[in-house]
Amino acid sequence: MPYVKIKVTDDGVTAEQKSKLIKGATRLLVDVLGKNPQTTVVIIEEVNTDNWGIGGESVTVLRQQAE
Amino acid sequence: MPYVKIKVTDDGVTAEQKSKLIKGATRLLVDVLGKNPQTTVVIIEEVNTDNWGIGGESVTVLRQQAE
Amino acid sequence: MPYVKIKVTDDGVTAEQKSKLIKGATRLLVDVLGKNPQTTVVIIEEVNTDNWGIGGESVTVLRQQAE
Amino acid sequence: MPYVKIKVTDDGVTAEQKSKLIKGATRLLVDVLGKNPQTTVVIIEEVNTDNWGIGGESVTVLRQQAE
Amino acid sequence: MPYVKIKVTDDGVTAEQKSKLIKGATRLLVDVLGKNPQTTVVIIEEVNTDNWGIGGESVTVLRQQAE
Amino acid sequence: MPYVKIKVTDDGVTAEQKSKLIKGATRLLVDVLGKNPQTTVVIIEEVNTDNWGIGGESVTVLRQQAE
Repeated sequence: MPYVKIKVTDDGVTAEQKSKLIKGATRLLVDVLGKNPQTTVVIIEEVNTDNWGIGGESVTVLRQQAE
Repeated sequence: MPYVKIKVTDDGVTAEQKSKLIKGATRLLVDVLGKNPQTTVVIIEEVNTDNWGIGGESVTVLRQQAE
Repeated sequence: MPYVKIKVTDDGVTAEQKSKLIKGATRLLVDVLGKNPQTTVVIIEEVNTDNWGIGGESVTVLRQQAE
Repeated sequence: MPYVKIKVTDDGVTAEQKSKLIKGATRLLVDVLGKNPQTTVVIIEEVNTDNWGIGGESVTVLRQQAE
Repeated sequence: MPYVKIKVTDDGVTAEQKSKLIKGATRLLVDVLGKNPQTTVVIIEEVNTDNWGIGGESVTVLRQQAE
Repeated sequence: MPYVKIKVTDDGVTAEQKSKLIKGATRLLVDVLGKNPQTTVVIIEEVNTDNWGIGGESVTVLRQQAE
């Protein structure tokens, strides 16, 4: 019955990558805590880089500075 | 002052259905806990079926298998 | 498969009240969106009144002022 | 290492306003709790007014009534 | 920079198990999306079984029925 | 109507510090977006250092290594 939320920047994550995240997170809960995979929920949230800040700057700005 | 978040897959939920969810969740908090409806907040999040996994598979894949 | 989170202040909500919130929220999703109740998850979070603010004041302070 | 989530209605918040929210929230955690700004994360979520309810009505409807 | 939240029932999860969840979720984001592990945050939330419902019943009640 | 969630480690944050976080976050939303402070909600969540991971390690372990 566990619930996992994965939040990442919206950099064109593919359906195949999402599928791997869902499978991997589900397996992790089975392996570590013996949870039932059938009721394990995984939700992926994709966040625009303007809306994600770290160190007081948006990721958009940080990437411009890093170029 | 309660806060309710409702997360569903993005299957074309209409404004009327959203309105019913907001009214119903607000009434539930009033009926069960005697909360003030005026300060009860309800937020609905719609999630793409690629981004929602259960049992290790995305809802997109589960629906294809169910067809 | 919907997911509902209900956040309330920790004012001694009883197990019976929690059960009513779980049943009511589940029924709401069935009634409004035709969701499957068996996979509907409801999680209740109880928050200390020091940790909940509205209008720039904690609920603890607001209640003291209201007395 | 703190984590701040700011949820607002999607009323055309500009990149500059988002940047100010990120800077301001980061500074708040530094000023009040002495946290390290470099590891402070701020995420902004913009919510459609149909999906945000208060007092049992969506913000969309409340704004129509207020006009 | 990804952020992962893992919500499980509060069944005496040990510090060692929590450590394995943190390591495993971090590695998953590195393996699938090539994310930087140094800025990957994992937060584990433990929820009382009275506060977690599925199928319209709390986990507390479901476990009593299953005995 | 904005909603702000502040997640920090549970290092004995005082009621006065919580009050400053609530006031500061509310003022930030007023200053940057012109939001109504009366309906701005701020919720503070305190997380045990075993349950917070960064860089693949719990904060508990990171602090032991830093001593």
